Amino acid sequence: MVTEFEFIHGIKERWALNRIGDDCAVLPGDGQNDLVITADLLIEDVDFRLGWMTPELLGHKALAVSLSDIAAMGGRPAWALLSIGAPGSLWESDFLNQFYSGWHELAANWGVELVGGDVSRSPDRLVIDSIVSGHVATGRALRRSGAKPGDGIFLAGNIGGAAGGLRLLETGKRLATAFPDEEILLLNQLQPQPQRLIANLLQEQQLAHSAIDVSDGLSSDLSHLCDASGVGAEIFADKLPIEPALTLLFPPDESMDLALNGGEDFALLFTGDERKICDANIAGVRHIGHVTANTAGIRLIDASGSRLLAPLGYRHF
Amino acid sequence: MVTEFEFIHGIKERWALNRIGDDCAVLPGDGQNDLVITADLLIEDVDFRLGWMTPELLGHKALAVSLSDIAAMGGRPAWALLSIGAPGSLWESDFLNQFYSGWHELAANWGVELVGGDVSRSPDRLVIDSIVSGHVATGRALRRSGAKPGDGIFLAGNIGGAAGGLRLLETGKRLATAFPDEEILLLNQLQPQPQRLIANLLQEQQLAHSAIDVSDGLSSDLSHLCDASGVGAEIFADKLPIEPALTLLFPPDESMDLALNGGEDFALLFTGDERKICDANIAGVRHIGHVTANTAGIRLIDASGSRLLAPLGYRHF
Repeated sequence: MVTEFEFIHGIKERWALNRIGDDCAVLPGDGQNDLVITADLLIEDVDFRLGWMTPELLGHKALAVSLSDIAAMGGRPAWALLSIGAPGSLWESDFLNQFYSGWHELAANWGVELVGGDVSRSPDRLVIDSIVSGHVATGRALRRSGAKPGDGIFLAGNIGGAAGGLRLLETGKRLATAFPDEEILLLNQLQPQPQRLIANLLQEQQLAHSAIDVSDGLSSDLSHLCDASGVGAEIFADKLPIEPALTLLFPPDESMDLALNGGEDFALLFTGDERKICDANIAGVRHIGHVTANTAGIRLIDASGSRLLAPLGYRHF
Repeated sequence: MVTEFEFIHGIKERWALNRIGDDCAVLPGDGQNDLVITADLLIEDVDFRLGWMTPELLGHKALAVSLSDIAAMGGRPAWALLSIGAPGSLWESDFLNQFYSGWHELAANWGVELVGGDVSRSPDRLVIDSIVSGHVATGRALRRSGAKPGDGIFLAGNIGGAAGGLRLLETGKRLATAFPDEEILLLNQLQPQPQRLIANLLQEQQLAHSAIDVSDGLSSDLSHLCDASGVGAEIFADKLPIEPALTLLFPPDESMDLALNGGEDFALLFTGDERKICDANIAGVRHIGHVTANTAGIRLIDASGSRLLAPLGYRHF
């Protein structure tokens, strides 16, 4: 069966859809700014489970996933549309009001205005389409395709925590009864915080050549970035900013697997001039590797040597 | 249970969402133009049934409903996002390719570019969120709120056909085996054609004071327009442009009911200077009544007298 990635690649080729393939589409704006826009579809029992989170947290997450796409393009979010199809049971409860409260709390923090969308009934499952638009200085959107051989590879934000949280949820852990370290992982999964400040800094200082948010997992997202840029990469296992609570609660091999292949942390992966970015010494940014001219993929270097890293991400909820 | 309309009204009040309530949100554009944008969520077994139409027709309709919103604001559509959640069975077939073909055929006719969206798996039902954006000269978007007492009320496009088509589908009629008059009604339902040319003409000549597309049904959509404008209306039963095939296939009372309360025709309902618009003598535009200062609702005038018309629309697929 064709994967989502293959399908999108297919329609992109077939209809020459040149604006598709980044975290956001980039469109002409007011002359000074381009407009960036993204859509994220969240479907109950595929992307989330209602029993795992409060309606407020779901509202937060629905917006957060799209804010992360805007941040990954170096954009400043401005307005949003929200389409919701909800089954009768949720209409009868206070669910939708609480969902919108969670959405609006995050929106207020980021200065995002809800300007439209659609509200409908659905037969059984909740579906949410989150559309967010923002601005970026004309021609300065951070694309996946800008990585150059010799660039340093950097991560802003920890990885693996959201996948660890998902694993805890799958084994029955819940926020209300979690221990502190468990709670950290659960909140990484249920209440992700996109990398706004660092995205703004990168944009103002023009430090990054390319960027993508880690939504599908580091191995997959770095692979997307390398494919779009026609480059390879090598990354160092001991430099990865693995969520500390993950290493406390999971064995080393499992932690590393979740950090490499688990999605939904919404860390910001970017490349740029290695010396400049290292010299800028930005809090929360970790140097994890180098872009290579070799297009044979991503090599992971650890104590036992070097191996090719397959893109195994996108197993997330 | 709260209706969609009441819910939207509630969140609009609670969070002071001033841009919500028209067919599109209107946002600042490039100085010369405002940007208009709309989202329409279509859910299998709520908004459509797969057994009733080809994938191409569904692709057409998913775009058409949003193009109609753009036209109703006097906008020129430019680009679109498309979010799709499809069950495994549709991924295994050629369904999605055919769906996108139908979408792109209409998009090409209207000059609309697909710039993004999301593609995901869903557990069982197909869900589609169609987002379309366009341009309108700054400050000249046609809003629901611009109707003035004394305005004429006009319709571009026939009404009732799509609801008649839905009734035929519910009784087992299908496109492949339909008689010509039945086919007309089925295509009104399955392949609606938004009112582009007349929308453009109204906009260029600045003839309209307010507009809305007839998506929920004339009684409901005229009611939305009157509520937004703080006015009332009287319309004449014998002036309504009822789809001729409807009156051939259904008894008079049922035809009138479907024309007044059936949705999805995507006719364009607008108000403006009665004499100017009548003098302009635009093909396909019918004068159906007047805006009144009375805010007590809509009166329908027919051979038996005058009665208050309740907003009974929005029963459509």
